[in-house]
Amino acid sequence: ASGRGWAIAPAVTPPPRAKQALRRAAPRCAAGDRAGAAARGEAAARPVALEEEIVSEKAAEESHRQDSANLLIFILLLTLTILTIWLFKHRRARFLHETGLAMIYGVLMGVILRYGIHVPSDVNNVTLSCQVQTSPATLLVNVSGKYYEYTLKGEISPHELNNVQDNEMLRKVTFDPEVFFNILLPPIIFYAGYSLKRRHFFRNLGSILAYAFLGTAISCFVIGSIMYGCVALMKVTGQLGGDFYFTDCLLFGAIVSATDPVTVLAIFHELQVDVELYALLFGESVLNDAVAIVLSSSIVAYQPAGDNSHTFDVTAMFKSIGIFLGIFSGSFAMGAATGVVTALISFSLFTKLREFPLLETGLFFLMSWSTFLLAEACGFTGVVAVLFCGITQAHYTYNNLSTESQHRTKQLFELLNFLAENFIFSYMGLTLFTFQNHDFNPTFIVGAFFAIFLGRAANIYPLSFLLNLGRRNKIGTNLQHMMMFAGLRGAMAFALAIRDTATYARQMMFSTTLLIVFFTVWVFGGGTTAMLSCLHIRVGVDSDQEHLGVPESERRSTKAESAWLFRLWYNFDHNYLKPLLTHSGPPLTTTLPSCCGPVARCLTSPQAYENQEQLKDDDSDLILNDGDISLTYGDSTVNADSITSSGTSRRIVGNSSEDALDRELAFGDHELVIRGTRLVLPMDDSEPPSSLVDSARHGPA
Amino acid sequence: ASGRGWAIAPAVTPPPRAKQALRRAAPRCAAGDRAGAAARGEAAARPVALEEEIVSEKAAEESHRQDSANLLIFILLLTLTILTIWLFKHRRARFLHETGLAMIYGVLMGVILRYGIHVPSDVNNVTLSCQVQTSPATLLVNVSGKYYEYTLKGEISPHELNNVQDNEMLRKVTFDPEVFFNILLPPIIFYAGYSLKRRHFFRNLGSILAYAFLGTAISCFVIGSIMYGCVALMKVTGQLGGDFYFTDCLLFGAIVSATDPVTVLAIFHELQVDVELYALLFGESVLNDAVAIVLSSSIVAYQPAGDNSHTFDVTAMFKSIGIFLGIFSGSFAMGAATGVVTALISFSLFTKLREFPLLETGLFFLMSWSTFLLAEACGFTGVVAVLFCGITQAHYTYNNLSTESQHRTKQLFELLNFLAENFIFSYMGLTLFTFQNHDFNPTFIVGAFFAIFLGRAANIYPLSFLLNLGRRNKIGTNLQHMMMFAGLRGAMAFALAIRDTATYARQMMFSTTLLIVFFTVWVFGGGTTAMLSCLHIRVGVDSDQEHLGVPESERRSTKAESAWLFRLWYNFDHNYLKPLLTHSGPPLTTTLPSCCGPVARCLTSPQAYENQEQLKDDDSDLILNDGDISLTYGDSTVNADSITSSGTSRRIVGNSSEDALDRELAFGDHELVIRGTRLVLPMDDSEPPSSLVDSARHGPA
Repeated sequence: ASGRGWAIAPAVTPPPRAKQALRRAAPRCAAGDRAGAAARGEAAARPVALEEEIVSEKAAEESHRQDSANLLIFILLLTLTILTIWLFKHRRARFLHETGLAMIYGVLMGVILRYGIHVPSDVNNVTLSCQVQTSPATLLVNVSGKYYEYTLKGEISPHELNNVQDNEMLRKVTFDPEVFFNILLPPIIFYAGYSLKRRHFFRNLGSILAYAFLGTAISCFVIGSIMYGCVALMKVTGQLGGDFYFTDCLLFGAIVSATDPVTVLAIFHELQVDVELYALLFGESVLNDAVAIVLSSSIVAYQPAGDNSHTFDVTAMFKSIGIFLGIFSGSFAMGAATGVVTALISFSLFTKLREFPLLETGLFFLMSWSTFLLAEACGFTGVVAVLFCGITQAHYTYNNLSTESQHRTKQLFELLNFLAENFIFSYMGLTLFTFQNHDFNPTFIVGAFFAIFLGRAANIYPLSFLLNLGRRNKIGTNLQHMMMFAGLRGAMAFALAIRDTATYARQMMFSTTLLIVFFTVWVFGGGTTAMLSCLHIRVGVDSDQEHLGVPESERRSTKAESAWLFRLWYNFDHNYLKPLLTHSGPPLTTTLPSCCGPVARCLTSPQAYENQEQLKDDDSDLILNDGDISLTYGDSTVNADSITSSGTSRRIVGNSSEDALDRELAFGDHELVIRGTRLVLPMDDSEPPSSLVDSARHGPA
Repeated sequence: ASGRGWAIAPAVTPPPRAKQALRRAAPRCAAGDRAGAAARGEAAARPVALEEEIVSEKAAEESHRQDSANLLIFILLLTLTILTIWLFKHRRARFLHETGLAMIYGVLMGVILRYGIHVPSDVNNVTLSCQVQTSPATLLVNVSGKYYEYTLKGEISPHELNNVQDNEMLRKVTFDPEVFFNILLPPIIFYAGYSLKRRHFFRNLGSILAYAFLGTAISCFVIGSIMYGCVALMKVTGQLGGDFYFTDCLLFGAIVSATDPVTVLAIFHELQVDVELYALLFGESVLNDAVAIVLSSSIVAYQPAGDNSHTFDVTAMFKSIGIFLGIFSGSFAMGAATGVVTALISFSLFTKLREFPLLETGLFFLMSWSTFLLAEACGFTGVVAVLFCGITQAHYTYNNLSTESQHRTKQLFELLNFLAENFIFSYMGLTLFTFQNHDFNPTFIVGAFFAIFLGRAANIYPLSFLLNLGRRNKIGTNLQHMMMFAGLRGAMAFALAIRDTATYARQMMFSTTLLIVFFTVWVFGGGTTAMLSCLHIRVGVDSDQEHLGVPESERRSTKAESAWLFRLWYNFDHNYLKPLLTHSGPPLTTTLPSCCGPVARCLTSPQAYENQEQLKDDDSDLILNDGDISLTYGDSTVNADSITSSGTSRRIVGNSSEDALDRELAFGDHELVIRGTRLVLPMDDSEPPSSLVDSARHGPA
């Protein structure tokens, strides 16, 4: 992880290659033609060149030194945050979450950088006046016969010309927005996928998808249209200082529709809030990040044909929708695919690789990362791909890792996630002052706050109503209020907003988003505990206990509710994918039709049988709770033993997978733990006070 | 870690900010003045701007896509390497080490990139002819009234002008050399320091320092002068195509004097070679990296006054020597200081922080990293600082970490080290074909190989002879031959060579260094096993067994040998620093003079007493081996119990620390393990087949 941060400095400063180029520039002059230069070089023209070289060396060192200093600022901010977090955790203070804290420190540092530091301007800059009409990305400058390649760094408004250096400094600190998408977001999102509570996620799959897809779309359009009204108002009152189209409004809607799981869920987890609520919120916020990012890029891609731009155009709209579906499904497929490939590799190697957890971890890490790069290289959305890659990895690959590697990977991604998160939040605070093109417009801001409130409401309440028609275990009004309240905006909204701050509209959107994030994280994030208690939402629920408590009827109902959506998939997964890709799950010989017995036998890993055996023993405790499960295990083990008489196996499989689904829904974790299939998640754990205890518990004694 | 790699792409490509700048460029034209622009904007001039915007969007996406693809190449190379390493480890193949393997893959990929791929040239570049005499780092171009800032990327030789794009691609792959120093080297060096075998290191401190400092200096000057002769010959035969001064030769000497621990030591560890040899080689190669890097930078800083450059100048030389001492001691101090600070923080917090290993790990990681940045920001050498920071962390901070965090940090840095190492080596292979300014000169190359051979010989044999006069347990001739043979060049040499490839001389040096690395890693690295057997160096030595085997007399002698150097320091450390900075070590109350009893009591952590108690119990097994130690523990625990009667404590302390030194030298690890003080190192472990088993063993069952 160490390297990550360094990414920033090179990204935002004149690329270090320039330093070398500078060094290169001088001596070449001296070298002249290759033949007898050595002789001449020493005598003539050398001192000048040498001098130049020294000067440029100094410049290079100076800039490098400044980079280090800038990065050091962030490191110190993080360190400070960690120390204070520790204090908070120690004092059990919940009024302010670590992310809010990081932002505060960021703001303070931003003030210092903006008003405290002044860099003396450099004489080394040369202003060329030339007759090019466009400003190309690459510029070849012919300096007295030698060609130098220059890259475009950005436009400078004329009044800034005199203090380029200061802006230089500030720009260095406010580093390239792409860094967020390429370095900071991936680990966060991957970890979210990797640590997804699969059981609760699947139990509420229907509702979660509804909230994530429909909900995000709704709120996007609600916010978009409200903002458009707001912009129209501004135009009338003459407050508008630039172009602001409906597409921009929609984009804004998409940006601020991405809710952030971090803050609230951290508190939920600590308080062990009702698992239903937890699952709904987590699932929604993870998925709607993915939805929002694809949505925004497809809105950007909305380009009406012909000159009459920014008027409504059906074909263009359908094109955008097509793009949305294309990118989303593409990224999804890519992520899942890489996950499966990794699972296959690990399946075939790691049994023997067990001795080398370092290699396992390295491979796992590299494969997960290459998902992101692959998706980006193919023009899909890397972040989305990484999310689904994470889910797949957790579902399949994780089971093939050795215990050692399971913990290593988990801890590694936990750390990356932690650092990236706090970095982003402290950076948010920083940009409030260091970002140079802020554009705060009262009307717009007020409108925006009003809009996100309405948008969230239009997302939660109607959908909950509709879902409750289908759900047997309703989503209570208090839960609905809580979901309404818990709609914080965070890293994703910020990253989307800062990604492009070129136009006037985008700048205004960015500044507003920043304020929204601050407000929601500080106020809503801080008020979560209070809100929970005043909504009488039960806390301190042990997820497993809660489950054993669920009456048979209700479990059937939840099953029925979720089954229609993923029963098919579940059976396929449980009977064919799991056995093919992991060492857990039933042996193929029991799941495949009798005709392909030999194939099945050679494809099934020996451990699968062992697992079967295990099942029988380890479920004794389940038997106490539930009769039909013991039954199930009865005959599933029977047919595991009597593979030869596999004429009847098909029917039995039907049953056993049915009941397996049952168990998955009801006692999923139990069973999975036993089979060693389950991802032991920090979040998925039922022990107070925090996820860390969990890992500590699994850590070496 | 995910981020680390990404660092590369932004660093080497036109900074992504440019993409945004491009987007920015267009709409601004449309925006016009702020007042009623919105109204006009839509009607007039919009399509053009929009079009431009789309074009530039496309360009930006394209370049971003290419970055991802480039990085993907490296990730795949690493993945491939890991898979093959697994195969090797599985087959117990030793003829080729993973690093050598990585290089081979790199070479193959380099060939493909160089000759396989052709990028169509872009029309988007504009060539300006203008009358600036220098090529400044920053260029302000006035494009029809708007100012754009450009940064220098490098010079392009006129014949490359037509296929800029291809070079662009290649340059993207051969990314910025600073990346090595800022991203890839630090984790490697830190890990080296963190995993230093402290006991054996201290036992041979004298010899190691001699080899590292004198030895490196000697070989640097030997190589330098040989190469100067070689260059003179080339000049006579007219093969020389540019300036090549004696300082360049010296620089080359410094570059190739840094030996690489990785390959050989991996094999040594696997074969459990004689610990003496291991300690000597490891210590030397770790320290001489530091020496070489500082040496080279102080040679670069050698700038004679006046016009008669590159002639001998006493003041300048002394200035260089001063710089060497200054930078080295400065970096050392800074590294040690940060380490101590971290230790203090951890000492005061981590006892309570124990519940949150994530925070611990994060803090530890950030502090270690900030060492590097701090040193760089202050103009010292970050890599050197990181090395000593690592040693300090291992010595003090590590003891304050919870067991969980100890493993987390160890595994984290292990992984980083592993990835960085293989990345560098596969990158080396890549550059053989993708680097564009290679300059292979047969004479120079032959001379270089001859020189490094002589230089190594002039380092090892005379020094060993001198050291043997002092040492009681001589360094046998076969060990000397082995050290001679084991002088591989690796990551550091490469990083130093590629850091600056501006001048003709540097380019030639780089190409030659590359060949030297390839040759030594493949031939010497591959031949290690054979060499060991033909030199009759005993393998399969269990370091601890070996120690119990050491006769009393010899241990005394080794003690005497090493004592004069660090007895003083050891006593200070054992009596004052350890108790102050860690929770292990004897309570201050026993070590401080009686007068400061109260201070001592309040400064000593309660655990220290517990540790004392532990000592008594846990050393029962040692007592079996060695009499005087049980005695020692006898009275040291006595005076631990009788703190009140601390009139005599001073004397006893004298003893106990004496004997503690004894134990440190003889049974150090044993005792430290028991006290939980010792860093459980992969390298420090005596179980086959590889370091990974070690961590696996400590991993959760």
